[in-house]
Amino acid sequence: MEPKREVNQTISSIQPANKELMEIAMNYINTLTKPLGSLGRIEELAIQLAGMKETIYPEVSPPGIAVFAADHGITTMGVSAYPKDVTAQMVHNFLNGGAAINAFAKEVNGNLKIVDIGIATQIQHNSLLQKNIKKGTNNFADEPAMTYSEVYESILVGIQTAETLIDEGANSIIVGEMGIGNTTSASALVTCITGCTVNDAVGYGTGISEEIRRKKEDVITKALMLHQPNATDAIDLLSKIGGLEIAAMTGAILKAAEQRIPVILDGFICTSAALLASLLEENVTDYLIAGHLSQEQGHKHALSFLGKKALLELDLRLGEGSGAALAYPLVSAACSMVKNMATFETAKVSEKM
Amino acid sequence: MEPKREVNQTISSIQPANKELMEIAMNYINTLTKPLGSLGRIEELAIQLAGMKETIYPEVSPPGIAVFAADHGITTMGVSAYPKDVTAQMVHNFLNGGAAINAFAKEVNGNLKIVDIGIATQIQHNSLLQKNIKKGTNNFADEPAMTYSEVYESILVGIQTAETLIDEGANSIIVGEMGIGNTTSASALVTCITGCTVNDAVGYGTGISEEIRRKKEDVITKALMLHQPNATDAIDLLSKIGGLEIAAMTGAILKAAEQRIPVILDGFICTSAALLASLLEENVTDYLIAGHLSQEQGHKHALSFLGKKALLELDLRLGEGSGAALAYPLVSAACSMVKNMATFETAKVSEKM
Repeated sequence: MEPKREVNQTISSIQPANKELMEIAMNYINTLTKPLGSLGRIEELAIQLAGMKETIYPEVSPPGIAVFAADHGITTMGVSAYPKDVTAQMVHNFLNGGAAINAFAKEVNGNLKIVDIGIATQIQHNSLLQKNIKKGTNNFADEPAMTYSEVYESILVGIQTAETLIDEGANSIIVGEMGIGNTTSASALVTCITGCTVNDAVGYGTGISEEIRRKKEDVITKALMLHQPNATDAIDLLSKIGGLEIAAMTGAILKAAEQRIPVILDGFICTSAALLASLLEENVTDYLIAGHLSQEQGHKHALSFLGKKALLELDLRLGEGSGAALAYPLVSAACSMVKNMATFETAKVSEKM
Repeated sequence: MEPKREVNQTISSIQPANKELMEIAMNYINTLTKPLGSLGRIEELAIQLAGMKETIYPEVSPPGIAVFAADHGITTMGVSAYPKDVTAQMVHNFLNGGAAINAFAKEVNGNLKIVDIGIATQIQHNSLLQKNIKKGTNNFADEPAMTYSEVYESILVGIQTAETLIDEGANSIIVGEMGIGNTTSASALVTCITGCTVNDAVGYGTGISEEIRRKKEDVITKALMLHQPNATDAIDLLSKIGGLEIAAMTGAILKAAEQRIPVILDGFICTSAALLASLLEENVTDYLIAGHLSQEQGHKHALSFLGKKALLELDLRLGEGSGAALAYPLVSAACSMVKNMATFETAKVSEKM
């Protein structure tokens, strides 16, 4: 089996953003009743969206939100501030509507799906999408996190989840995650893909001490020596040092881009999935909007490798898709600007002297 | 007549934020199901709002938005990129729903009021609040912009407008403005109040050349020498170098703070009004949330004098209240976080190890 080829056969090839439409959109936005460029990055967003959706009147509402949850064998190394059980506990919390992403999804009228892609314990709940591929990754300090086949299956679940959200009407996609230990995996991935140092890529996660941060760095350094992953091969990376939810997010991002649907990126883990998606299909970056810059220090390296600048910088470090949901109203406002504003001509407003 | 005393008699004294409630809110937020502090500035906002509204469950929806429009005699000095007529033309555009603030007010379900506080030409429209105090300020390069009495009347209109919005249900207030030439007035005010240099406070407005920017600096420098305004007296400042819409915004901010209603600040002009409000009642700053950092270079000095850090930094420089409306969803999300999230205890989620 060649999972990379299989992934690339499962989705159609991703088209680049339509540059012609972007230019038409830019020219049109310049006729709207405001000083030239005075809405700054909101105008840039509207232009970017026009290129994605091939219309000067893009629509991003409603957003579809998929939160993928999985456990990580690496937690046995003591790299996290919270016990592993918290993954399942927080999934119950999502399903009962008590987490941050529930609150913020409600604010933006998002269609929220919670997906078990690899939780260690079985959860029974009508609203949970049961797609468990494996009961948590192996401890990648000792062995590969998962097989190539498990990587492919997880990516496929991500693809299918995005497809369902789009079928149900999503005009933009937010992917989030829950997985105690997943900043360790994301830090390892970001180190390999961007070429930054392990030290640059390792932060304080959900709130570890400097001592544990150093241990995390050490665990990653040794794992990279052990596995020698191929830094340009997403499947190899995911198999050796990845996570099931990171693989699923990668798939969801690919599917959205294939359908010309904008993806609003959340924080560090989500952006590691975007890096992997861009290794599989480089045009995917045209469909990515960086929602926020996380407090997790590796995030700036990941975003800069993608050539993206975040919309928000609010010292967030939660995940779950929460930062992307907070950024969503700016993306929606960009659409509203184009749709609702009058031009200088129709409004009979004098242009610049 | 002593307008300062009259203003301070027209509104009740402004109470500081309730520190005890802020501490209760902080402790409560620390029990919500997320790593401690992981929602960064959203948590800070929720704490600040608790202090303003004296409840750990503050509500900011719906926002009331008042846009005050007025002309400026200083435009005869050639300091603006747009002809003076654009003030009235843009007010027509507001009334017909074609401006950026219309688009963004719609996004946030805002109650939008357009107020003629000093447009040079008469505008007939059912939706326009006709409160014209004077047909534009005098040219402050030669004479005071307006009388103390006109300042007071304009502040009073602002107070009444905020009162109406609050009576109609506003749980937060956004004030915006339209007035060709008003960055010149705001730059002069910010120079006097914050003590920054004229050069620091003068930017490119709606898009002037470097040559005109220098002229603007020169006009302001000479006007300050001519009038010698008292830098701690809001009425004297407004009378000598202010604007009718800036005075009205000052009044609206004061009234909102008196009613413990949060004010989301827009850009440079709006923040100059907030500075004036803080000279009249220092506790007003407890009720101010800095929506965004404008591209207009004086804005950072004004915000820093108020001790505020902006939520957004998107290279905006439009005014109208547009940047505050773009920031509003973050403020609303802070309320939603407290209202909708479960605690570790109720959700049965394990706390940090």
